[in-house]
Amino acid sequence: MWTGVFPAVTTKFTEDDRLDHGEMERCFALQMEAGCDGIIVCGSLGEGPMLSHDEKIDVVKTAQKIAGNKPVLLTVNEAGTREAAAIARRAAKEGANGLMVVPSPIYHTNEEETVAALRAVAEAGDLPVMIYSNRLAYRVDVTVDQMEELAKDKRFVAIKESSDDIRRSTEIINRFGDRYDLFTGVDNLAFEALSVGAIGWVAGLVTAFPRETVAIYQLMKQGRREEALKIYRWFRPLLDLDVSTYLVQNIKLAEVLAISTNDRVRMPRQPLSGERRRTVEKIVRDALAARPELPTF
Amino acid sequence: MWTGVFPAVTTKFTEDDRLDHGEMERCFALQMEAGCDGIIVCGSLGEGPMLSHDEKIDVVKTAQKIAGNKPVLLTVNEAGTREAAAIARRAAKEGANGLMVVPSPIYHTNEEETVAALRAVAEAGDLPVMIYSNRLAYRVDVTVDQMEELAKDKRFVAIKESSDDIRRSTEIINRFGDRYDLFTGVDNLAFEALSVGAIGWVAGLVTAFPRETVAIYQLMKQGRREEALKIYRWFRPLLDLDVSTYLVQNIKLAEVLAISTNDRVRMPRQPLSGERRRTVEKIVRDALAARPELPTF
Amino acid sequence: MWTGVFPAVTTKFTEDDRLDHGEMERCFALQMEAGCDGIIVCGSLGEGPMLSHDEKIDVVKTAQKIAGNKPVLLTVNEAGTREAAAIARRAAKEGANGLMVVPSPIYHTNEEETVAALRAVAEAGDLPVMIYSNRLAYRVDVTVDQMEELAKDKRFVAIKESSDDIRRSTEIINRFGDRYDLFTGVDNLAFEALSVGAIGWVAGLVTAFPRETVAIYQLMKQGRREEALKIYRWFRPLLDLDVSTYLVQNIKLAEVLAISTNDRVRMPRQPLSGERRRTVEKIVRDALAARPELPTF
Amino acid sequence: MWTGVFPAVTTKFTEDDRLDHGEMERCFALQMEAGCDGIIVCGSLGEGPMLSHDEKIDVVKTAQKIAGNKPVLLTVNEAGTREAAAIARRAAKEGANGLMVVPSPIYHTNEEETVAALRAVAEAGDLPVMIYSNRLAYRVDVTVDQMEELAKDKRFVAIKESSDDIRRSTEIINRFGDRYDLFTGVDNLAFEALSVGAIGWVAGLVTAFPRETVAIYQLMKQGRREEALKIYRWFRPLLDLDVSTYLVQNIKLAEVLAISTNDRVRMPRQPLSGERRRTVEKIVRDALAARPELPTF
Repeated sequence: MWTGVFPAVTTKFTEDDRLDHGEMERCFALQMEAGCDGIIVCGSLGEGPMLSHDEKIDVVKTAQKIAGNKPVLLTVNEAGTREAAAIARRAAKEGANGLMVVPSPIYHTNEEETVAALRAVAEAGDLPVMIYSNRLAYRVDVTVDQMEELAKDKRFVAIKESSDDIRRSTEIINRFGDRYDLFTGVDNLAFEALSVGAIGWVAGLVTAFPRETVAIYQLMKQGRREEALKIYRWFRPLLDLDVSTYLVQNIKLAEVLAISTNDRVRMPRQPLSGERRRTVEKIVRDALAARPELPTF
Repeated sequence: MWTGVFPAVTTKFTEDDRLDHGEMERCFALQMEAGCDGIIVCGSLGEGPMLSHDEKIDVVKTAQKIAGNKPVLLTVNEAGTREAAAIARRAAKEGANGLMVVPSPIYHTNEEETVAALRAVAEAGDLPVMIYSNRLAYRVDVTVDQMEELAKDKRFVAIKESSDDIRRSTEIINRFGDRYDLFTGVDNLAFEALSVGAIGWVAGLVTAFPRETVAIYQLMKQGRREEALKIYRWFRPLLDLDVSTYLVQNIKLAEVLAISTNDRVRMPRQPLSGERRRTVEKIVRDALAARPELPTF
Repeated sequence: MWTGVFPAVTTKFTEDDRLDHGEMERCFALQMEAGCDGIIVCGSLGEGPMLSHDEKIDVVKTAQKIAGNKPVLLTVNEAGTREAAAIARRAAKEGANGLMVVPSPIYHTNEEETVAALRAVAEAGDLPVMIYSNRLAYRVDVTVDQMEELAKDKRFVAIKESSDDIRRSTEIINRFGDRYDLFTGVDNLAFEALSVGAIGWVAGLVTAFPRETVAIYQLMKQGRREEALKIYRWFRPLLDLDVSTYLVQNIKLAEVLAISTNDRVRMPRQPLSGERRRTVEKIVRDALAARPELPTF
Repeated sequence: MWTGVFPAVTTKFTEDDRLDHGEMERCFALQMEAGCDGIIVCGSLGEGPMLSHDEKIDVVKTAQKIAGNKPVLLTVNEAGTREAAAIARRAAKEGANGLMVVPSPIYHTNEEETVAALRAVAEAGDLPVMIYSNRLAYRVDVTVDQMEELAKDKRFVAIKESSDDIRRSTEIINRFGDRYDLFTGVDNLAFEALSVGAIGWVAGLVTAFPRETVAIYQLMKQGRREEALKIYRWFRPLLDLDVSTYLVQNIKLAEVLAISTNDRVRMPRQPLSGERRRTVEKIVRDALAARPELPTF
């Protein structure tokens, strides 16, 4: 159902901490122009947990304006299943094309609870669902056994594989073949995931470097692996910024330098400062200075 | 300012998942009758993250009805600082006596962000604050260095020490003397914490066993350590239920058996079932069967 | 200098717990016949820490008899640097072709100590050294910064990359190009490592399945990736046995079923029993039943 | 059988890296004069893994010369059970009074293997055994269930409780009463362990500060807890040096300043240097400057 590069876009704020829809339109458009295949809003990178339900729906609408006929997915990441079901229902009503669902971001659900929570959200929204499995961030794993349980419901169509262990991708393929659309959710494991058979990439640095991200994906798809690997090696110091406690601030700072936007975040986050800021700036500037010529594909 | 046993009470739900204020009144009253010194509502054990702001305020009011002149603290545990400040402000207006504040339950703040988030909440509420430091549950530690920074603001009056490392208690006392009211927040480290100088206990199993909890505290205070240790040793298998992913379900099940209430929880939590339920039931029944005669104090 | 598949062979024992050189000759020969490119003896898989220095030298000699002109490397993995230097010196004298060196298997050395220990062993042996970096097993990491420091000494020629993080391979290539021969040391990350540029594989399951291991390597080298991936997917449940506390017992049991040898181990290890044995046996039997036809290469 | 303060003494080396028996005699004598109740040689702190079997026996003999009728225990900490049994047998023959046994310092034994390895060593030595349970250092835990299994053999008389979790002490007492002599093996949990019922202390900083260590123990034994706590609070920054990767170097540096010896260590360890050395020196000097007057007991 889904395939390709799906940016997990950042949310843009005004100086007085409200949503900046104009700036989001501009930034989202850069993604689509570069050839991205969908948009995921209000994820970790989109500071979803710091947005109200009203705000989330507004971001969905802005993304839809830009995405054209490409799918727009809303991230559902609520502590309580009741609230998760409520926002899923509302997103469906407002025209979202799919949901990316985190099972449980605060409480650490056991296997039965994980499956039950995901099902409750899928049923409430009645939209195609990408299961977001990220045991590092949330300490709740969606294992292949649970995926098998969930496979009975056709609404679960895709997996965002963020276990941080590349081995999991082959386990999923060995177990399910193409039952699920397998997306990698870890920027600096993307080449490896595509090598073993993933068909999608929920990407982070793409918001600052959309053309390079799409190039790697398309070249891999065409079997032009050496060309893709060359770009990937150049890209790695940047992609590493996605695997960090500070991924939001890192990537927003990369956006400042690469697409001339701001790096405002909502508290408790604060923009990078001091040594940490200087380090990230250097990584981004060094990459910009050595930016590779992209092949046509 | 604060001292003694403060139960972190559970929240009671009706069969149709609404707040059951009648049952909460009954259960809270058992705490006060046993000699507890305050009440903390809507913490982890109170399923705070699954309650709306309106519900939290309602629970505060119910607790106040029962607590008489003992302090009622509301737990503030929001992903965004903006929402945390909002509920702090509202709690103050509605008459809460204090706040127990988690710095950041989803994003892992760094040192500056932790301090800034705690300050923002304290300023918004302008109430006495108990700092809730629990690096295991939230992967955000409030270190002694940060406590020193926060000590400049008189609103920070107490620490709920839940680092899971008993050594931290002595570090706090060695650094601050009695600047902060030091509460232990880990049931099965309570005797040890009181031994090295803690003056309060944010307790969990107290909701099912209030008299035994208060007895240990009071005996320790009177220097009757051997008597306290004897009760504590009996109590340990129960207290261990507080240090578990399933602490809410565990303790609610203990309440079922000890104070004849229900163990309804909000999703994604589910009541214990199967082997896990049988194990906890056995622990509680064994403890009830061997329940010690309490000395007068 | 080195490239290809290097089996980390198991050590064979007689019923009365002495070295079984005859059986080792038979098993090592299977490796060479299948096209392996070297042999590494007395590693973790070879129960090195349970062998005396005399025994290690004897195993080196047995391997040399079989290896022909292919290199034989001895693993140096001693708690004390003094003993490490002693065995390195002796191995060189007895004709070993290289050393695979663990910096420090008990004490967790810091960066300076790690570098100093590796240098002391390299100087003592004066043989080409494969640096064995395995932070999971030994909690001592050899980072890229330390590799840079070590690169000044030409004796350090290769890296056995066992960080368990596939990202490290690209970091090494990005930093050093081809200064070091990059070997993957983790069976179930081998395809991924070869995809990003590793040129060698220190292999485990190879001892039971030498032809399949060599096939994957050779097909990758020839750019026949899809064929290699197909075998790798079949191989994964077996390769997973290499990443386990019980890797020695797992792989020796695989050898029992695949090459008709025994699975004797030295205490404190014991052969697998009960449920664990049944599980591994099933994995091996299932794989044998579905064993793929290998393409010629 | 055993009770009181047992120093885990450091091993002293000459400038050319041989054993310095004269200096060991002097240092061990300081321990006995201060009132220690036994000596444990060749433990982690004694750099046991860097000593040959011959050297270990020599250290045992030196300790016996000084210990008079107090027990001398040799630490058995070998990768292979065969070597562990061999040194145990030899120690018994040479007159050691007991053994402190680590189940398996490199391979991570499972429950059956742990029990079997400990039994094999106990049978070989036929001496009273202190079980050394340290899951952090060796990633092998000796759980209360395994202790119950081992309790059938009377040679297992004591436990060095180094799980780093103070809760374990009460679990042992709740399960076994006084079947085992319970020693704490973690300096900065000692007061807490003695508070809940431990009767012994395998101590580290005692080698530099023997009188303070013994004072805490004796005061606790006499119920003079407040006096003990006061010394313990002063002692904590020093005791923290025992819970560190660098415990050997830390404690040897404390010895340099407190009892005028050297801090030579065997490679791969190196003496502390730079910032790390300055930090430890400051801790020791600050403690010496504020050294408390000890009460008579």
